[in-house]
Amino acid sequence: MDLMEVLRERIKIINREIDEFLRVKEPEKLYDATRYLPLSGGKRLRPLLVSLSTEVLGEDWKKSIPFGIAIELMHNFTLVHDDIMDRSPLRRNIETTHVKFGEETAIIAGDLLFAKSYEALHKLDVNKDAFRRLNLLLTKCIEEICEGQYMDMDFEKREDVTEEEYIKMIEKKTAALFSCSAEGGAIIGGGNDEEIKALSMYGKSLGLGFQIWDDYLDLKGEEKEFGKRIGNDIREGKKTLMIIHAVARADEKEKRLILSILGKKDAKDEEIKEVIEVLDNLGSLSYAKEKAMKYAREAKEFLRVLPENDARRCLEELVDYAISRRR
Amino acid sequence: MDLMEVLRERIKIINREIDEFLRVKEPEKLYDATRYLPLSGGKRLRPLLVSLSTEVLGEDWKKSIPFGIAIELMHNFTLVHDDIMDRSPLRRNIETTHVKFGEETAIIAGDLLFAKSYEALHKLDVNKDAFRRLNLLLTKCIEEICEGQYMDMDFEKREDVTEEEYIKMIEKKTAALFSCSAEGGAIIGGGNDEEIKALSMYGKSLGLGFQIWDDYLDLKGEEKEFGKRIGNDIREGKKTLMIIHAVARADEKEKRLILSILGKKDAKDEEIKEVIEVLDNLGSLSYAKEKAMKYAREAKEFLRVLPENDARRCLEELVDYAISRRR
Repeated sequence: MDLMEVLRERIKIINREIDEFLRVKEPEKLYDATRYLPLSGGKRLRPLLVSLSTEVLGEDWKKSIPFGIAIELMHNFTLVHDDIMDRSPLRRNIETTHVKFGEETAIIAGDLLFAKSYEALHKLDVNKDAFRRLNLLLTKCIEEICEGQYMDMDFEKREDVTEEEYIKMIEKKTAALFSCSAEGGAIIGGGNDEEIKALSMYGKSLGLGFQIWDDYLDLKGEEKEFGKRIGNDIREGKKTLMIIHAVARADEKEKRLILSILGKKDAKDEEIKEVIEVLDNLGSLSYAKEKAMKYAREAKEFLRVLPENDARRCLEELVDYAISRRR
Repeated sequence: MDLMEVLRERIKIINREIDEFLRVKEPEKLYDATRYLPLSGGKRLRPLLVSLSTEVLGEDWKKSIPFGIAIELMHNFTLVHDDIMDRSPLRRNIETTHVKFGEETAIIAGDLLFAKSYEALHKLDVNKDAFRRLNLLLTKCIEEICEGQYMDMDFEKREDVTEEEYIKMIEKKTAALFSCSAEGGAIIGGGNDEEIKALSMYGKSLGLGFQIWDDYLDLKGEEKEFGKRIGNDIREGKKTLMIIHAVARADEKEKRLILSILGKKDAKDEEIKEVIEVLDNLGSLSYAKEKAMKYAREAKEFLRVLPENDARRCLEELVDYAISRRR
């Protein structure tokens, strides 16, 4: 089944709700900048994940919409600020917020998305205990994302990053929000402790697989589909799983080549290609693919305790999508 | 009475709680950067305001501590990000966070303070309705602060800012958080609608007076006491009440002088002095002082509906402090 086709109507509803929730008011320019990225057409994977995690437990998915919006706005806030820190010019095939509106405005737009995310929680129709629990869940998650983003930047300056450290970093930077999405959806769905835990773990494994695949796409994606320039992670000196794997196995000559281009902001496409070839020859690309698949399998296993229904099948499909998508 | 002396023990307790709440964990450097400004010794006016607003209604002020911390961390988050946007090198007599730790780290440290502020709310021992109400109050307040900060920056680029617009801007950028502090304290104190409203309005007027006095200090403060270089607002091109008042009354020559130095990043101390003289001659400094006093009087009037007790006397003193302080 084509998951995104099945969920198309749902995505439309989510998009409409985000559009409405971020309606422009004074000062207009600030709201323009704040709306810019969230309304530029993301995949809405996280709100979909929220909605399916609610639905799989027998509750109407629409009850989860405000939490899905909160998660999506939080995600977009991190993208706006990360793009400033990484000096990224493009995102989703268009200029990043700070390039279009200036860095100062982008910092505030990110902050405003952060606040709007909490405002969205107040639209939830849940009991007071659930509200407080979801609020804390989201808060702890953002703290992890901040820690993960810091580690990611810090790793750029280090040459001795281990695979274990990398996994810990993407757990915080990426997987935490997937886990929070699924766990939050399960809470809204009225799940029992076992179900909530299972969906939380599912989300985490899904997120790990998603991020490793994301790193892979940065090297092997098609630029037009991917929406970003290929090899950006290499230019930024990101210590991805593939780089860590390769550097540990490279001979002196290969290692010199990798390290001479890693972090070279103005590396030419030719140079990026050379690094990719070395990584490929060292088996690092297939190593990463296998890791992503391992996390995908784990994610699916966590679903076993849940009722067998359409939503569960969609959650399974979501895993496959996460590690086969082209953007 | 010396208010800060009376409240010294309270400030100590608040400082200890902030220190404990922001304890260092991994990644250490990020937490160092996050702790740096909040633990560099602010005046803690806002948590004091929270505590007095709880106490004036007969409740133990300590019940308000988590909300006071939430407010103080939110305040510090805005300072860290604002200093990046304003490229300010100094704050409280020490280097700003982005100068000491780098801009990237400072952006994340600000974001982490934002999240930590919400985490602090979860330490509150209040009923579930009050929790949700305080949560929404804080959220709406931050949105206003974002709008105010944007307006402040936008005004730097405009020459036709009116006094009305300036007041609206500082209402959002500064007074909203004072109002939120007092209103939140009143909610925690179990106030009735009239009391909550009165403290909210008190906080707003206090904040307006505070900000106008702050702008005044930027020109007439003693650099060593003030902790920042004199005339920064002029170098940054800020449209303060004094500038707006002066430009509207200046003759051609005076106007040319003001506008030639306003926004000149590298203006010499001599040039700043010249502008201050012109503002003084045009009566703009005393105009601002009178406005600050007007808001101070209004603030005190809002207190009338509250019980007469020590806390109320402290709230009155706080007003005088806000518009006579030297830093």
